[in-house]
Amino acid sequence: MITLKGAAVSAKIKEQVDTLLTDLKGKTPKLAIVRIGERPDDLSYERGALKKMESFGLMGESFAFPQDITDEAFKEEFAKINENPDIDGILVLRPLPKQIKEKDIEHMIDPGKDLDGISPENIARVFAGDDTGFAPCTAEAVVEVLKANEIALTGKRVAIVGRSMVVGRPLSMLMLKENATVTICHTRTENLKETCKNAQILVAAAGRARMVDGSYVGKDAIVVDVGINVDKDGKLCGDVDFDSLEGTASMATPVPGGVGAVTTAVLARHLVSAALKK
Amino acid sequence: MITLKGAAVSAKIKEQVDTLLTDLKGKTPKLAIVRIGERPDDLSYERGALKKMESFGLMGESFAFPQDITDEAFKEEFAKINENPDIDGILVLRPLPKQIKEKDIEHMIDPGKDLDGISPENIARVFAGDDTGFAPCTAEAVVEVLKANEIALTGKRVAIVGRSMVVGRPLSMLMLKENATVTICHTRTENLKETCKNAQILVAAAGRARMVDGSYVGKDAIVVDVGINVDKDGKLCGDVDFDSLEGTASMATPVPGGVGAVTTAVLARHLVSAALKK
Repeated sequence: MITLKGAAVSAKIKEQVDTLLTDLKGKTPKLAIVRIGERPDDLSYERGALKKMESFGLMGESFAFPQDITDEAFKEEFAKINENPDIDGILVLRPLPKQIKEKDIEHMIDPGKDLDGISPENIARVFAGDDTGFAPCTAEAVVEVLKANEIALTGKRVAIVGRSMVVGRPLSMLMLKENATVTICHTRTENLKETCKNAQILVAAAGRARMVDGSYVGKDAIVVDVGINVDKDGKLCGDVDFDSLEGTASMATPVPGGVGAVTTAVLARHLVSAALKK
Repeated sequence: MITLKGAAVSAKIKEQVDTLLTDLKGKTPKLAIVRIGERPDDLSYERGALKKMESFGLMGESFAFPQDITDEAFKEEFAKINENPDIDGILVLRPLPKQIKEKDIEHMIDPGKDLDGISPENIARVFAGDDTGFAPCTAEAVVEVLKANEIALTGKRVAIVGRSMVVGRPLSMLMLKENATVTICHTRTENLKETCKNAQILVAAAGRARMVDGSYVGKDAIVVDVGINVDKDGKLCGDVDFDSLEGTASMATPVPGGVGAVTTAVLARHLVSAALKK
Protein backbone atom coordinates (compact mmCIF):
# COMPACT_ATOMS: atom_id res chain seq x y z
CA MET A 1 0.00 0.00 0.00
CA ILE A 2 1.29 3.42 -0.96
CA THR A 3 1.07 6.18 1.65
CA LEU A 4 -0.13 9.43 0.09
CA LYS A 5 1.70 12.07 2.07
CA GLY A 6 0.39 15.60 2.33
CA ALA A 7 3.83 17.22 2.35
CA ALA A 8 4.49 16.29 -1.28
CA VAL A 9 1.12 17.69 -2.34
CA SER A 10 1.73 20.85 -0.34
CA ALA A 11 5.09 21.27 -2.08
CA LYS A 12 3.37 21.09 -5.48
CA ILE A 13 0.88 23.73 -4.40
CA LYS A 14 3.75 25.91 -3.20
CA GLU A 15 5.16 25.85 -6.73
CA GLN A 16 1.79 27.10 -8.05
CA VAL A 17 1.75 29.80 -5.38
CA ASP A 18 5.28 30.89 -6.34
CA THR A 19 4.14 31.31 -9.95
CA LEU A 20 1.03 33.24 -8.93
CA LEU A 21 3.12 35.48 -6.68
CA THR A 22 5.27 36.66 -9.57
CA ASP A 23 2.08 38.18 -11.07
CA LEU A 24 1.64 40.20 -7.89
CA LYS A 25 4.88 42.07 -8.54
CA GLY A 26 6.27 42.26 -5.03
CA LYS A 27 3.05 42.71 -3.09
CA THR A 28 2.72 40.18 -0.27
CA PRO A 29 -0.86 38.95 0.30
CA LYS A 30 -2.12 39.03 3.86
CA LEU A 31 -4.43 36.58 5.63
CA ALA A 32 -6.58 37.49 8.62
CA ILE A 33 -7.50 34.61 10.92
CA VAL A 34 -10.54 35.53 12.98
CA ARG A 35 -10.92 33.63 16.22
CA ILE A 36 -13.23 33.92 19.20
CA GLY A 37 -12.10 32.23 22.41
CA GLU A 38 -9.20 29.85 22.94
CA ARG A 39 -10.43 26.43 21.79
CA PRO A 40 -7.43 24.09 21.49
CA ASP A 41 -8.55 22.95 17.99
CA ASP A 42 -8.70 26.55 16.81
CA LEU A 43 -5.33 27.43 18.31
CA SER A 44 -3.73 24.41 16.72
CA TYR A 45 -5.25 25.16 13.31
CA GLU A 46 -4.26 28.81 13.61
CA ARG A 47 -0.65 27.94 14.42
CA GLY A 48 -0.49 25.56 11.45
CA ALA A 49 -2.04 28.10 9.08
CA LEU A 50 0.25 30.96 10.17
CA LYS A 51 3.28 28.72 9.87
CA LYS A 52 2.21 27.66 6.37
CA MET A 53 1.69 31.28 5.26
CA GLU A 54 5.18 32.11 6.48
CA SER A 55 6.76 29.15 4.69
CA PHE A 56 4.90 30.13 1.51
CA GLY A 57 6.20 33.71 1.82
CA LEU A 58 2.78 35.14 2.73
CA MET A 59 1.61 37.25 5.64
CA GLY A 60 -0.83 36.15 8.31
CA GLU A 61 -2.29 37.83 11.37
CA SER A 62 -4.54 36.47 14.08
CA PHE A 63 -7.48 38.61 15.22
CA ALA A 64 -8.60 37.06 18.49
CA PHE A 65 -11.64 38.11 20.53
CA PRO A 66 -12.84 37.08 23.98
CA GLN A 67 -15.21 34.12 24.23
CA ASP A 68 -17.98 36.32 25.62
CA ILE A 69 -17.84 39.11 23.03
CA THR A 70 -21.33 40.30 22.10
CA ASP A 71 -22.81 39.77 18.64
CA GLU A 72 -22.89 43.52 18.08
CA ALA A 73 -19.31 44.16 19.18
CA PHE A 74 -18.01 41.23 17.13
CA LYS A 75 -19.80 42.39 14.00
CA GLU A 76 -18.30 45.84 14.41
CA GLU A 77 -14.79 44.36 14.64
CA PHE A 78 -15.46 41.90 11.83
CA ALA A 79 -16.64 44.72 9.54
CA LYS A 80 -13.33 46.51 10.09
CA ILE A 81 -11.31 43.44 9.09
CA ASN A 82 -13.65 42.76 6.16
CA GLU A 83 -13.24 46.28 4.81
CA ASN A 84 -9.53 46.66 5.55
CA PRO A 85 -7.82 47.04 2.14
CA ASP A 86 -4.56 45.61 3.54
CA ILE A 87 -6.25 42.28 4.19
CA ASP A 88 -6.64 40.08 1.12
CA GLY A 89 -8.33 37.08 2.64
CA ILE A 90 -10.16 36.00 5.79
CA LEU A 91 -10.49 32.70 7.59
CA VAL A 92 -13.10 32.57 10.37
CA LEU A 93 -12.48 29.74 12.83
CA ARG A 94 -15.82 28.06 13.43
CA PRO A 95 -18.16 27.21 15.01
CA LEU A 96 -18.51 30.63 16.63
CA PRO A 97 -19.92 30.86 20.17
CA LYS A 98 -23.70 30.70 20.45
CA GLN A 99 -24.26 34.41 21.03
CA ILE A 100 -22.81 35.22 17.59
CA LYS A 101 -25.23 34.94 14.66
CA GLU A 102 -22.97 32.91 12.39
CA LYS A 103 -25.44 33.19 9.47
CA ASP A 104 -25.01 36.98 9.55
CA ILE A 105 -21.23 36.61 9.31
CA GLU A 106 -21.64 34.29 6.29
CA HIS A 107 -23.64 37.06 4.63
CA MET A 108 -21.30 39.86 5.76
CA ILE A 109 -18.02 38.39 4.58
CA ASP A 110 -16.79 39.80 1.27
CA PRO A 111 -17.04 36.82 -1.16
CA GLY A 112 -13.73 37.97 -2.66
CA LYS A 113 -12.00 37.56 0.73
CA ASP A 114 -13.94 34.48 1.80
CA LEU A 115 -11.09 31.97 1.44
CA ASP A 116 -12.94 29.06 3.08
CA GLY A 117 -16.15 29.44 1.05
CA ILE A 118 -18.70 30.22 3.76
CA SER A 119 -20.65 32.96 1.92
CA PRO A 120 -23.82 32.08 -0.05
CA GLU A 121 -22.13 33.45 -3.16
CA ASN A 122 -19.22 31.00 -2.89
CA ILE A 123 -21.42 28.10 -1.80
CA ALA A 124 -23.65 28.65 -4.84
CA ARG A 125 -20.62 28.66 -7.13
CA VAL A 126 -19.26 25.41 -5.74
CA PHE A 127 -22.73 23.91 -6.11
CA ALA A 128 -22.87 24.99 -9.75
CA GLY A 129 -19.39 23.65 -10.52
CA ASP A 130 -18.15 27.21 -11.13
CA ASP A 131 -14.52 27.37 -9.98
CA THR A 132 -14.22 31.16 -9.98
CA GLY A 133 -15.19 31.24 -6.28
CA PHE A 134 -13.64 29.65 -3.20
CA ALA A 135 -14.52 26.13 -2.10
CA PRO A 136 -13.98 25.09 1.53
CA CYS A 137 -10.23 24.40 1.78
CA THR A 138 -10.55 20.92 3.28
CA ALA A 139 -12.89 19.71 0.54
CA GLU A 140 -10.58 21.11 -2.13
CA ALA A 141 -7.58 19.55 -0.40
CA VAL A 142 -9.04 16.07 -0.95
CA VAL A 143 -9.23 16.67 -4.71
CA GLU A 144 -5.69 18.12 -4.64
CA VAL A 145 -4.29 15.00 -2.97
CA LEU A 146 -5.79 12.84 -5.71
CA LYS A 147 -4.74 15.12 -8.57
CA ALA A 148 -1.20 15.59 -7.31
CA ASN A 149 -0.85 11.82 -7.24
CA GLU A 150 -2.22 11.57 -10.79
CA ILE A 151 -5.27 9.59 -9.76
CA ALA A 152 -7.90 9.91 -12.50
CA LEU A 153 -11.38 10.80 -11.28
CA THR A 154 -13.49 10.74 -14.46
CA GLY A 155 -16.07 7.97 -14.30
CA LYS A 156 -14.70 6.67 -10.99
CA ARG A 157 -17.02 5.48 -8.22
CA VAL A 158 -16.36 7.79 -5.28
CA ALA A 159 -18.00 7.27 -1.89
CA ILE A 160 -17.91 10.08 0.65
CA VAL A 161 -18.77 9.26 4.24
CA GLY A 162 -20.10 12.43 5.87
CA ARG A 163 -22.36 15.21 4.66
CA SER A 164 -21.09 18.32 6.41
CA MET A 165 -21.01 21.77 4.83
CA VAL A 166 -17.24 21.82 5.37
CA VAL A 167 -16.35 18.57 3.60
CA GLY A 168 -19.01 16.09 2.47
CA ARG A 169 -21.42 18.34 0.58
CA PRO A 170 -18.94 20.64 -1.17
CA LEU A 171 -16.60 17.71 -1.89
CA SER A 172 -19.44 15.86 -3.63
CA MET A 173 -19.80 18.84 -5.97
CA LEU A 174 -16.04 19.16 -6.56
CA MET A 175 -15.90 15.44 -7.36
CA LEU A 176 -18.85 15.83 -9.74
CA LYS A 177 -16.95 18.59 -11.49
CA GLU A 178 -14.15 16.06 -12.01
CA ASN A 179 -16.72 13.72 -13.58
CA ALA A 180 -16.67 11.17 -10.78
CA THR A 181 -19.80 9.20 -9.93
CA VAL A 182 -20.42 10.31 -6.37
CA THR A 183 -22.25 8.56 -3.55
CA ILE A 184 -22.80 10.52 -0.34
CA CYS A 185 -23.11 8.32 2.75
CA HIS A 186 -23.88 9.28 6.33
CA THR A 187 -25.06 7.98 9.68
CA ARG A 188 -28.44 6.94 8.25
CA THR A 189 -27.00 4.98 5.34
CA GLU A 190 -28.04 1.33 5.38
CA ASN A 191 -25.31 -1.19 4.49
CA LEU A 192 -22.63 1.47 4.82
CA LYS A 193 -19.86 -1.12 4.64
CA GLU A 194 -21.14 -2.57 1.39
CA THR A 195 -21.59 0.88 -0.18
CA CYS A 196 -18.07 1.93 0.80
CA LYS A 197 -16.62 -1.35 -0.42
CA ASN A 198 -18.10 -0.72 -3.87
CA ALA A 199 -16.16 2.56 -4.23
CA GLN A 200 -12.91 2.92 -6.13
CA ILE A 201 -12.11 6.01 -4.08
CA LEU A 202 -13.33 6.25 -0.50
CA VAL A 203 -13.27 9.52 1.45
CA ALA A 204 -13.82 9.34 5.20
CA ALA A 205 -15.15 12.62 6.57
CA ALA A 206 -17.49 11.46 9.28
CA GLY A 207 -15.63 12.84 12.30
CA ARG A 208 -15.51 9.52 14.14
CA ALA A 209 -12.15 8.12 15.22
CA ARG A 210 -11.06 5.08 13.16
CA MET A 211 -14.64 4.17 12.15
CA VAL A 212 -13.49 3.03 8.70
CA ASP A 213 -11.32 -0.08 8.69
CA GLY A 214 -10.17 -2.52 6.03
CA SER A 215 -13.56 -4.22 5.94
CA TYR A 216 -15.06 -1.06 4.39
CA VAL A 217 -12.51 -0.94 1.59
CA GLY A 218 -12.72 -2.60 -1.80
CA LYS A 219 -9.72 -4.37 -3.35
CA ASP A 220 -7.15 -1.80 -4.54
CA ALA A 221 -9.35 1.16 -3.58
CA ILE A 222 -7.84 4.53 -2.70
CA VAL A 223 -8.67 5.86 0.76
CA VAL A 224 -8.56 9.53 1.76
CA ASP A 225 -8.91 10.30 5.45
CA VAL A 226 -10.24 13.76 6.32
CA GLY A 227 -10.81 13.06 10.00
CA ILE A 228 -8.88 14.71 12.80
CA ASN A 229 -9.82 13.14 16.09
CA VAL A 230 -8.22 12.52 19.44
CA ASP A 231 -8.65 8.93 20.58
CA LYS A 232 -9.23 7.80 24.15
CA ASP A 233 -5.49 7.63 24.79
CA GLY A 234 -5.15 11.27 23.72
CA LYS A 235 -3.54 10.31 20.43
CA LEU A 236 -4.31 12.19 17.21
CA CYS A 237 -6.03 9.92 14.70
CA GLY A 238 -8.18 10.02 11.60
CA ASP A 239 -11.54 8.48 10.68
CA VAL A 240 -9.65 5.57 9.17
CA ASP A 241 -7.84 2.74 10.92
CA PHE A 242 -4.80 3.09 8.66
CA ASP A 243 -2.98 -0.09 9.66
CA SER A 244 -6.03 -2.24 8.89
CA LEU A 245 -5.96 -1.19 5.20
CA GLU A 246 -2.84 -3.20 4.37
CA GLY A 247 -3.77 -5.85 1.81
CA THR A 248 -6.97 -4.14 0.64
CA ALA A 249 -6.35 -0.47 -0.25
CA SER A 250 -3.82 0.39 -2.95
CA MET A 251 -3.15 3.86 -1.55
CA ALA A 252 -4.19 5.82 1.54
CA THR A 253 -3.52 9.13 3.28
CA PRO A 254 -2.22 9.03 6.86
CA VAL A 255 -3.33 11.18 9.82
CA PRO A 256 -1.42 13.25 10.75
CA GLY A 257 0.61 14.08 7.65
CA GLY A 258 -2.14 13.67 5.07
CA VAL A 259 -5.00 15.97 4.05
CA GLY A 260 -4.37 18.41 6.93
CA ALA A 261 -1.08 19.64 5.49
CA VAL A 262 -2.77 20.20 2.16
CA THR A 263 -5.69 22.18 3.59
CA THR A 264 -3.49 25.07 4.69
CA ALA A 265 -1.64 24.96 1.36
CA VAL A 266 -4.99 25.35 -0.41
CA LEU A 267 -5.74 28.22 1.95
CA ALA A 268 -2.47 29.87 0.89
CA ARG A 269 -3.32 29.44 -2.78
CA HIS A 270 -6.77 30.92 -2.18
CA LEU A 271 -5.11 33.89 -0.45
CA VAL A 272 -2.90 34.62 -3.43
CA SER A 273 -5.84 34.19 -5.85
CA ALA A 274 -7.87 36.64 -3.76
CA ALA A 275 -5.03 39.18 -3.85
CA LEU A 276 -4.70 38.73 -7.62
CA LYS A 277 -8.43 39.24 -8.21
CA LYS A 278 -8.49 42.51 -6.28
CA MET B 1 -46.52 -2.10 -11.30
CA ILE B 2 -48.23 0.89 -9.71
CA THR B 3 -48.42 4.10 -11.75
CA LEU B 4 -47.65 7.13 -9.57
CA LYS B 5 -49.83 9.84 -11.03
CA GLY B 6 -49.01 13.50 -10.58
CA ALA B 7 -52.65 14.59 -10.33
CA ALA B 8 -53.12 12.90 -6.96
CA VAL B 9 -49.95 14.53 -5.61
CA SER B 10 -51.01 17.90 -6.96
CA ALA B 11 -54.38 17.52 -5.21
CA LYS B 12 -52.59 16.92 -1.90
CA ILE B 13 -50.49 20.02 -2.42
CA LYS B 14 -53.66 21.99 -3.20
CA GLU B 15 -54.99 21.05 0.25
CA GLN B 16 -51.80 22.49 1.81
CA VAL B 17 -52.15 25.63 -0.29
CA ASP B 18 -55.77 26.05 0.83
CA THR B 19 -54.66 25.90 4.46
CA LEU B 20 -51.85 28.40 3.86
CA LEU B 21 -54.27 30.74 2.05
CA THR B 22 -56.50 31.04 5.11
CA ASP B 23 -53.53 32.65 6.89
CA LEU B 24 -53.41 35.30 4.17
CA LYS B 25 -56.86 36.57 5.14
CA GLY B 26 -58.33 37.22 1.71
CA LYS B 27 -55.22 38.45 -0.06
CA THR B 28 -54.58 36.56 -3.31
CA PRO B 29 -50.88 35.97 -4.08
CA LYS B 30 -49.71 36.90 -7.54
CA LEU B 31 -47.12 35.15 -9.73
CA ALA B 32 -45.16 36.92 -12.47
CA ILE B 33 -43.89 34.67 -15.25
CA VAL B 34 -41.04 36.38 -17.06
CA ARG B 35 -40.46 35.19 -20.60
CA ILE B 36 -38.26 36.37 -23.46
CA GLY B 37 -39.21 35.19 -26.93
CA GLU B 38 -41.77 32.57 -27.94
CA ARG B 39 -40.07 29.20 -27.47
CA PRO B 40 -42.75 26.45 -27.66
CA ASP B 41 -41.41 24.83 -24.45
CA ASP B 42 -41.73 28.12 -22.58
CA LEU B 43 -45.22 28.83 -23.92
CA SER B 44 -46.36 25.35 -22.97
CA TYR B 45 -44.91 25.63 -19.45
CA GLU B 46 -46.38 29.11 -19.06
CA ARG B 47 -49.87 27.94 -20.05
CA GLY B 48 -49.64 25.03 -17.62
CA ALA B 49 -48.42 27.25 -14.78
CA LEU B 50 -51.08 29.94 -15.30
CA LYS B 51 -53.79 27.28 -15.47
CA LYS B 52 -52.51 25.73 -12.24
CA MET B 53 -52.45 29.11 -10.45
CA GLU B 54 -56.05 29.69 -11.49
CA SER B 55 -57.20 26.26 -10.35
CA PHE B 56 -55.45 26.84 -7.02
CA GLY B 57 -57.21 30.22 -6.63
CA LEU B 58 -54.03 32.25 -7.23
CA MET B 59 -53.19 35.00 -9.68
CA GLY B 60 -50.66 34.78 -12.47
CA GLU B 61 -49.49 37.17 -15.13
CA SER B 62 -47.12 36.68 -18.02
CA PHE B 63 -44.52 39.37 -18.71
CA ALA B 64 -43.25 38.66 -22.21
CA PHE B 65 -40.40 40.46 -23.96
CA PRO B 66 -39.14 40.30 -27.54
CA GLN B 67 -36.40 37.77 -28.34
CA ASP B 68 -33.96 40.55 -29.25
CA ILE B 69 -34.45 42.74 -26.15
CA THR B 70 -31.14 44.18 -24.98
CA ASP B 71 -29.54 43.22 -21.69
CA GLU B 72 -29.96 46.76 -20.42
CA ALA B 73 -33.61 47.10 -21.41
CA PHE B 74 -34.48 43.70 -19.97
CA LYS B 75 -32.80 44.47 -16.65
CA GLU B 76 -34.77 47.70 -16.41
CA GLU B 77 -38.04 45.82 -16.96
CA PHE B 78 -37.00 43.01 -14.66
CA ALA B 79 -36.19 45.46 -11.88
CA LYS B 80 -39.72 46.87 -12.08
CA ILE B 81 -41.27 43.41 -11.72
CA ASN B 82 -38.82 42.52 -8.96
CA GLU B 83 -39.68 45.62 -6.97
CA ASN B 84 -43.42 45.63 -7.65
CA PRO B 85 -45.11 45.13 -4.25
CA ASP B 86 -48.17 43.56 -5.93
CA ILE B 87 -46.05 40.67 -7.20
CA ASP B 88 -45.32 38.00 -4.61
CA GLY B 89 -43.27 35.60 -6.68
CA ILE B 90 -41.36 35.40 -9.94
CA LEU B 91 -40.62 32.57 -12.33
CA VAL B 92 -38.06 33.34 -15.04
CA LEU B 93 -38.33 30.96 -18.01
CA ARG B 94 -34.82 29.88 -18.88
CA PRO B 95 -32.42 29.67 -20.58
CA LEU B 96 -32.56 33.36 -21.49
CA PRO B 97 -31.23 34.46 -24.90
CA LYS B 98 -27.48 34.86 -25.18
CA GLN B 99 -27.42 38.65 -25.04
CA ILE B 100 -28.91 38.60 -21.51
CA LYS B 101 -26.44 38.08 -18.68
CA GLU B 102 -28.35 35.36 -16.85
CA LYS B 103 -25.90 35.42 -13.91
CA ASP B 104 -26.84 39.06 -13.27
CA ILE B 105 -30.54 38.15 -13.15
CA GLU B 106 -29.76 35.38 -10.63
CA HIS B 107 -28.13 38.03 -8.45
CA MET B 108 -30.83 40.65 -9.03
CA ILE B 109 -33.88 38.55 -8.19
CA ASP B 110 -35.24 39.12 -4.69
CA PRO B 111 -34.56 35.79 -2.88
CA GLY B 112 -37.97 36.18 -1.23
CA LYS B 113 -39.68 36.19 -4.65
CA ASP B 114 -37.34 33.68 -6.27
CA LEU B 115 -39.83 30.77 -6.44
CA ASP B 116 -37.64 28.50 -8.58
CA GLY B 117 -34.48 28.92 -6.49
CA ILE B 118 -32.09 30.54 -8.96
CA SER B 119 -30.49 33.12 -6.61
CA PRO B 120 -27.21 32.31 -4.81
CA GLU B 121 -29.04 32.81 -1.51
CA ASN B 122 -31.60 30.08 -2.28
CA ILE B 123 -29.03 27.78 -3.88
CA ALA B 124 -26.86 28.04 -0.77
CA ARG B 125 -29.83 27.20 1.46
CA VAL B 126 -30.75 24.11 -0.57
CA PHE B 127 -27.11 23.05 -0.44
CA ALA B 128 -27.07 23.42 3.35
CA GLY B 129 -30.34 21.52 3.80
CA ASP B 130 -32.04 24.69 5.05
CA ASP B 131 -35.67 24.59 3.91
CA THR B 132 -36.46 28.23 4.64
CA GLY B 133 -35.57 29.15 1.05
CA PHE B 134 -36.93 27.98 -2.30
CA ALA B 135 -35.60 24.89 -4.05
CA PRO B 136 -36.05 24.51 -7.82
CA CYS B 137 -39.67 23.36 -8.23
CA THR B 138 -38.91 20.31 -10.37
CA ALA B 139 -36.40 18.93 -7.89
CA GLU B 140 -38.82 19.46 -5.03
CA ALA B 141 -41.62 17.88 -7.06
CA VAL B 142 -39.69 14.58 -7.16
CA VAL B 143 -39.54 14.48 -3.37
CA GLU B 144 -43.23 15.43 -3.19
CA VAL B 145 -44.24 12.52 -5.45
CA LEU B 146 -42.42 10.10 -3.15
CA LYS B 147 -43.70 11.63 0.07
CA ALA B 148 -47.32 11.83 -1.11
CA ASN B 149 -47.13 8.13 -1.90
CA GLU B 150 -45.70 7.40 1.53
CA ILE B 151 -42.42 6.09 0.18
CA ALA B 152 -39.83 6.24 2.96
CA LEU B 153 -36.52 7.80 1.97
CA THR B 154 -34.37 7.42 5.11
CA GLY B 155 -31.44 5.10 4.45
CA LYS B 156 -32.66 4.29 0.94
CA ARG B 157 -30.23 3.98 -1.98
CA VAL B 158 -31.26 6.69 -4.42
CA ALA B 159 -29.60 7.06 -7.83
CA ILE B 160 -30.11 10.26 -9.77
CA VAL B 161 -29.19 10.28 -13.47
CA GLY B 162 -28.34 13.85 -14.43
CA ARG B 163 -26.44 16.62 -12.69
CA SER B 164 -28.15 19.81 -13.83
CA MET B 165 -28.68 22.85 -11.60
CA VAL B 166 -32.43 22.50 -12.17
CA VAL B 167 -32.86 18.88 -11.06
CA GLY B 168 -29.86 16.61 -10.43
CA ARG B 169 -27.75 18.75 -8.10
CA PRO B 170 -30.50 20.32 -5.97
CA LEU B 171 -32.40 17.02 -5.85
CA SER B 172 -29.31 15.28 -4.47
CA MET B 173 -29.33 17.77 -1.59
CA LEU B 174 -33.09 17.46 -1.00
CA MET B 175 -32.72 13.67 -0.92
CA LEU B 176 -29.82 13.99 1.51
CA LYS B 177 -32.04 16.08 3.75
CA GLU B 178 -34.48 13.13 3.74
CA ASN B 179 -31.58 10.92 4.86
CA ALA B 180 -31.33 8.98 1.62
CA THR B 181 -27.97 7.63 0.43
CA VAL B 182 -27.56 9.49 -2.81
CA THR B 183 -25.55 8.57 -5.90
CA ILE B 184 -25.30 11.16 -8.67
CA CYS B 185 -24.75 9.65 -12.12
CA HIS B 186 -24.14 11.36 -15.45
CA THR B 187 -22.84 10.89 -18.97
CA ARG B 188 -19.33 10.08 -17.73
CA THR B 189 -20.48 7.43 -15.25
CA GLU B 190 -18.94 4.03 -15.97
CA ASN B 191 -21.30 1.04 -15.63
CA LEU B 192 -24.33 3.32 -15.49
CA LYS B 193 -26.71 0.41 -15.84
CA GLU B 194 -25.21 -1.45 -12.91
CA THR B 195 -25.20 1.67 -10.70
CA CYS B 196 -28.85 2.40 -11.50
CA LYS B 197 -29.83 -1.22 -10.93
CA ASN B 198 -28.40 -1.07 -7.43
CA ALA B 199 -30.76 1.79 -6.46
CA GLN B 200 -34.00 1.34 -4.57
CA ILE B 201 -35.24 4.64 -6.00
CA LEU B 202 -34.12 5.70 -9.46
CA VAL B 203 -34.64 9.25 -10.72
CA ALA B 204 -34.14 9.88 -14.44
CA ALA B 205 -33.27 13.51 -15.14
CA ALA B 206 -30.84 13.21 -18.01
CA GLY B 207 -32.91 14.88 -20.71
CA ARG B 208 -32.60 11.98 -23.17
CA ALA B 209 -35.75 10.37 -24.53
CA ARG B 210 -36.39 6.87 -23.11
CA MET B 211 -32.72 6.30 -22.24
CA VAL B 212 -33.64 4.37 -19.08
CA ASP B 213 -35.38 1.05 -19.70
CA GLY B 214 -36.15 -1.99 -17.58
CA SER B 215 -32.57 -3.22 -17.78
CA TYR B 216 -31.49 -0.23 -15.63
CA VAL B 217 -33.99 -0.99 -12.90
CA GLY B 218 -33.51 -3.22 -9.87
CA LYS B 219 -36.21 -5.63 -8.74
CA ASP B 220 -39.09 -3.72 -7.10
CA ALA B 221 -37.34 -0.36 -7.45
CA ILE B 222 -39.31 2.88 -7.69
CA VAL B 223 -38.70 4.94 -10.82
CA VAL B 224 -39.33 8.68 -11.09
CA ASP B 225 -39.14 10.18 -14.57
CA VAL B 226 -38.30 13.89 -14.72
CA GLY B 227 -37.71 13.99 -18.48
CA ILE B 228 -39.88 15.88 -20.93
CA ASN B 229 -38.77 15.10 -24.46
CA VAL B 230 -40.32 14.92 -27.88
CA ASP B 231 -39.42 11.68 -29.67
CA LYS B 232 -38.72 11.36 -33.38
CA ASP B 233 -42.43 10.78 -34.08
CA GLY B 234 -43.25 14.09 -32.37
CA LYS B 235 -44.69 12.32 -29.33
CA LEU B 236 -44.12 13.64 -25.79
CA CYS B 237 -42.07 11.18 -23.74
CA GLY B 238 -39.90 10.98 -20.66
CA ASP B 239 -36.36 9.80 -20.01
CA VAL B 240 -37.81 6.40 -19.12
CA ASP B 241 -39.25 3.74 -21.39
CA PHE B 242 -42.27 3.23 -19.14
CA ASP B 243 -43.66 0.08 -20.75
CA SER B 244 -40.34 -1.73 -20.38
CA LEU B 245 -40.49 -1.43 -16.57
CA GLU B 246 -43.30 -3.96 -16.16
CA GLY B 247 -42.00 -6.91 -14.17
CA THR B 248 -39.04 -5.04 -12.63
CA ALA B 249 -40.14 -1.72 -11.07
CA SER B 250 -42.72 -1.74 -8.30
CA MET B 251 -43.87 1.82 -9.01
CA ALA B 252 -43.16 4.45 -11.64
CA THR B 253 -44.29 7.91 -12.72
CA PRO B 254 -45.62 8.34 -16.27
CA VAL B 255 -44.84 11.12 -18.74
CA PRO B 256 -47.04 13.05 -19.28
CA GLY B 257 -49.12 12.98 -16.10
CA GLY B 258 -46.30 12.47 -13.62
CA VAL B 259 -43.76 14.90 -12.14
CA GLY B 260 -44.75 17.74 -14.50
CA ALA B 261 -48.15 18.21 -12.90
CA VAL B 262 -46.51 18.36 -9.48
CA THR B 263 -43.90 20.94 -10.49
CA THR B 264 -46.50 23.66 -11.03
CA ALA B 265 -48.27 22.67 -7.80
CA VAL B 266 -44.97 23.16 -5.95
CA LEU B 267 -44.64 26.53 -7.71
CA ALA B 268 -48.09 27.46 -6.39
CA ARG B 269 -47.12 26.46 -2.85
CA HIS B 270 -43.92 28.47 -3.13
CA LEU B 271 -45.97 31.46 -4.26
CA VAL B 272 -48.23 31.31 -1.22
CA SER B 273 -45.21 30.83 1.09
CA ALA B 274 -43.58 33.90 -0.47
CA ALA B 275 -46.72 35.96 0.08
CA LEU B 276 -46.94 34.76 3.69
CA LYS B 277 -43.31 35.65 4.42
CA LYS B 278 -43.73 39.21 3.17
